[in-house]
Amino acid sequence: MAGHPRLALRFASANGRRGERVRLGGQDVTFVAPEDVPLDGVALVFSALPHGSSAPWVTRVSVHGAHVVDLSADLRPGNGAPVDVPYGLTEVARDELTGAAVVANPGCYPTAILLALLPLAEQGLVLPGGTIGVAAASGVTGAGSSPKPELLFGEVTENYRAYAVGNGHRHLAEMRATLARWGTDADVLFTPHLLPVARGILATLTVPLARPLEHPLELWRERFANEPFVEVTDELPSLRDVVHRNVVRIAVRAAENVRHPTLVVMAAIDNLVKGAAGQALQNANRVLGLDETAGLPR
Amino acid sequence: MAGHPRLALRFASANGRRGERVRLGGQDVTFVAPEDVPLDGVALVFSALPHGSSAPWVTRVSVHGAHVVDLSADLRPGNGAPVDVPYGLTEVARDELTGAAVVANPGCYPTAILLALLPLAEQGLVLPGGTIGVAAASGVTGAGSSPKPELLFGEVTENYRAYAVGNGHRHLAEMRATLARWGTDADVLFTPHLLPVARGILATLTVPLARPLEHPLELWRERFANEPFVEVTDELPSLRDVVHRNVVRIAVRAAENVRHPTLVVMAAIDNLVKGAAGQALQNANRVLGLDETAGLPR
Amino acid sequence: MAGHPRLALRFASANGRRGERVRLGGQDVTFVAPEDVPLDGVALVFSALPHGSSAPWVTRVSVHGAHVVDLSADLRPGNGAPVDVPYGLTEVARDELTGAAVVANPGCYPTAILLALLPLAEQGLVLPGGTIGVAAASGVTGAGSSPKPELLFGEVTENYRAYAVGNGHRHLAEMRATLARWGTDADVLFTPHLLPVARGILATLTVPLARPLEHPLELWRERFANEPFVEVTDELPSLRDVVHRNVVRIAVRAAENVRHPTLVVMAAIDNLVKGAAGQALQNANRVLGLDETAGLPR
Amino acid sequence: MAGHPRLALRFASANGRRGERVRLGGQDVTFVAPEDVPLDGVALVFSALPHGSSAPWVTRVSVHGAHVVDLSADLRPGNGAPVDVPYGLTEVARDELTGAAVVANPGCYPTAILLALLPLAEQGLVLPGGTIGVAAASGVTGAGSSPKPELLFGEVTENYRAYAVGNGHRHLAEMRATLARWGTDADVLFTPHLLPVARGILATLTVPLARPLEHPLELWRERFANEPFVEVTDELPSLRDVVHRNVVRIAVRAAENVRHPTLVVMAAIDNLVKGAAGQALQNANRVLGLDETAGLPR
Repeated sequence: MAGHPRLALRFASANGRRGERVRLGGQDVTFVAPEDVPLDGVALVFSALPHGSSAPWVTRVSVHGAHVVDLSADLRPGNGAPVDVPYGLTEVARDELTGAAVVANPGCYPTAILLALLPLAEQGLVLPGGTIGVAAASGVTGAGSSPKPELLFGEVTENYRAYAVGNGHRHLAEMRATLARWGTDADVLFTPHLLPVARGILATLTVPLARPLEHPLELWRERFANEPFVEVTDELPSLRDVVHRNVVRIAVRAAENVRHPTLVVMAAIDNLVKGAAGQALQNANRVLGLDETAGLPR
Repeated sequence: MAGHPRLALRFASANGRRGERVRLGGQDVTFVAPEDVPLDGVALVFSALPHGSSAPWVTRVSVHGAHVVDLSADLRPGNGAPVDVPYGLTEVARDELTGAAVVANPGCYPTAILLALLPLAEQGLVLPGGTIGVAAASGVTGAGSSPKPELLFGEVTENYRAYAVGNGHRHLAEMRATLARWGTDADVLFTPHLLPVARGILATLTVPLARPLEHPLELWRERFANEPFVEVTDELPSLRDVVHRNVVRIAVRAAENVRHPTLVVMAAIDNLVKGAAGQALQNANRVLGLDETAGLPR
Repeated sequence: MAGHPRLALRFASANGRRGERVRLGGQDVTFVAPEDVPLDGVALVFSALPHGSSAPWVTRVSVHGAHVVDLSADLRPGNGAPVDVPYGLTEVARDELTGAAVVANPGCYPTAILLALLPLAEQGLVLPGGTIGVAAASGVTGAGSSPKPELLFGEVTENYRAYAVGNGHRHLAEMRATLARWGTDADVLFTPHLLPVARGILATLTVPLARPLEHPLELWRERFANEPFVEVTDELPSLRDVVHRNVVRIAVRAAENVRHPTLVVMAAIDNLVKGAAGQALQNANRVLGLDETAGLPR
Repeated sequence: MAGHPRLALRFASANGRRGERVRLGGQDVTFVAPEDVPLDGVALVFSALPHGSSAPWVTRVSVHGAHVVDLSADLRPGNGAPVDVPYGLTEVARDELTGAAVVANPGCYPTAILLALLPLAEQGLVLPGGTIGVAAASGVTGAGSSPKPELLFGEVTENYRAYAVGNGHRHLAEMRATLARWGTDADVLFTPHLLPVARGILATLTVPLARPLEHPLELWRERFANEPFVEVTDELPSLRDVVHRNVVRIAVRAAENVRHPTLVVMAAIDNLVKGAAGQALQNANRVLGLDETAGLPR
């Protein structure tokens, strides 16, 4: 928010750090306890509580009349949310977002993967009954900032490994439910990996097609032609292209030497920006009727 | 070869470094020009010429009676080799190798990927006509040691990207030809990535099955029960587990929430050891009738 | 220059890349050959020729009436420059710079080290005849972007070493000559090291004092009180604090348990920003009479 | 100990991990609680308790007749140890060690720094009353394996900073006391830094001399001529040269362009091997009268 022309920070709350003074969004801020949060006159709250404890808090905030962009998984599709709120994949839900009381901000992996699949899904081009293979890799900030032994520098440097293999990742439900809403019944087989980098996600998808496509990249170019935060490129995307920026960068290749028409789609984001705080601000801009790009690094 | 009880280095040749004195295999060695190589009395030559220039050299060496372990791709299956020589995936070709005049040492990616697939392929368990998805990632030494701009530290650190996407990698032919020899007609869709690490390969394979398997890991445990350099584990393999060691480390998970029975198989190797020099020495041991494990770090 | 409110790029020239199209300063630009550079109407040229070939070019540019900020070492103090031009350590030379025909932009190491020493030197507080010890470490971009074998990722990762040890670094003359101008006759013993990071310099100086100082940090706080790009802090500076920013960050500690009063002064910069392009733009702003902070990331 | 021809592991104890089964020294081992340690028949104990809690344990072990190599700082010189035990800088204390009941194993920084200074100190060549400047840098394993926020990958990668600046490091007392024993009264000004690498220490020392030396490196070559674990080299040492090896690697340069004769001495070690476990085993070999090099990687 440091560069936002219209928004200013009213308060920041962090249970374990109450009383700590930090610099946030270009302002000096002291963390208050959740129960001491001054909600009166607040236009919008960004909520990033641990998964599971978000719902009561969101209710309390809404009562005060503040909009909420919720970064937990609790209210996202596929997670058994008690209420149905817009799922803030901004490029899809833009119109629903204006004035919304609560928005469920997407997870980092789903942001990259769903935006990569969107043009195929919307046009019914994914092979019905097929399996979309997703091999993705994330920097360590995707695992949070709590000091776990497996995230120490000495463990991560010069290392690389998969985790939650065999469709065990908690973000899968969110992806599957969203694809179902989009009318795609294909299976997803998602294998995340931990990269020795601080930030960034690269997802590599193999997508079986319902029919061959002659100029596949055009599909993405057209769908995202007017999107300020989607870059469709001939060159393969790399983490370096996207870190510290609120963009998803997508490239596509047709698979050679395979019987069934198949595309390889790659999408890169910064998990902390387009995959979290950046998209949250993009959504907040929509909710409040502001310029969607305000305050966001392109 | 520094720790080999039976072999000693007779000469080393490197065209661009002739006259340079280095320490190799525990010995002080001066690089000679290829035309000055003292072949008389040499039992075996490790040849690592650039792809394309290996064949005439191998012929010249063979005339002198020396065995050759050739690390180029020229004589590997699928590459249009003028002669048919054993393909030195040791765990498969062991018996063919003893006394062989020439052995084609496998590429680094094919070593990890083919050993991961071997138990399924041998038993006809890969879905006929299906597509094996392979997302693999390699450290920078897999790209050689020539100073290319894209391999500079400043380009690789905190970065990650795919390359040769859409089945453009030159190692694919070797994998496809070997799978065909094993009777597997499935397609392979191979996407390699460049990791910000010095060494190591992790391959993540998604394999559609001809029929469900109740205890899939047992298949690998049984096939590799007596293999000194194959580790089949419950835990997911990481690069750290295998670097500086002549092993491939394999784990398997069944995919949940997909219609078609599918396995995720992961294999990790050190691209410079089991993926190159280590397997070459393992093969040399076979060729010369020595203990297969002599000189090799487990 | 992408964010500069008053300057726009007229041309870019790079001998080895002529004809190549790139995106620079927020504009699409095609590199022209040095002899084809359109100098008419150009207000200021940033020149970053290799050390040794800068002087004739600077003369040619000046003839056309354009100001020059020269990033080579040729015109810096201590290097036998044919003409005496202002040395663009902005915080020291600010008044000299306005309207200057040519400015010699400081080297990256000298920027960090000289700004760290400035308050002591100006007040005659460095022990006459003493030795200032400087152990500094730089990321790999300090060595340029040419692909040299020792800068490959595989060589730099998990490594660290000194170079030019014993006062062999070419930037030393620039530092010694500047200290002499400032009236400090102490020796400098400079040991640079290569860090496994892309960017950033941390210099750690041990400075013997002419007399003890009770509150040493106050000296820096006062000298730099109004400087927009100097941060004097209680906490020890780290590379993370300064990368991508046009700042030098300085902290000071008194040495305990030594007989002679001695300070340890630390200074951190981004070698590519405050140590090169950022300071060059800061100087250009001075030369052209613009707001000194225009276009610069703080 | 995995490669030691004469020693086998009888037990391993780790308070917080009791009952955990691990592979150590080539054996499968279950951690026992300290009070359940089977000391009968044990020849030697390696003790690595936290600093402060070592002394009573060492006493208990000694009563059982086992020798102790103690890796804590408690019994090292300068730390107010209740008893005087040999300080296991093996290259200095070799003769004292044979049969010793208890040996204090040196810290990692002191090992590198003291071995670098030894030839100068023994010959009285350090300027009396002068100041030895030591700028050293260590990989993160030097800070232990507890998960602290500042050791997370996301905090360490692409970062570099000093710590304990101004002679605040707890290893300083050990260095000063040892230099005093060696008859050197010079001050030490020690500035450690944290490197973004897993392991390795490089210490860069600037040493004012009592008199100029014509061929300084000869001093180190002669002193360490027969040492199996000291490498004196013309080339500057790097971390890569020493990691995973039980060696210290030392190079020397005379400082140019300074009034007072001064040497720059560099020493590199692996903090986990020669700086900890390797030297501990080297000392154990001496204590037990075995070949000093047994089991140690050179």
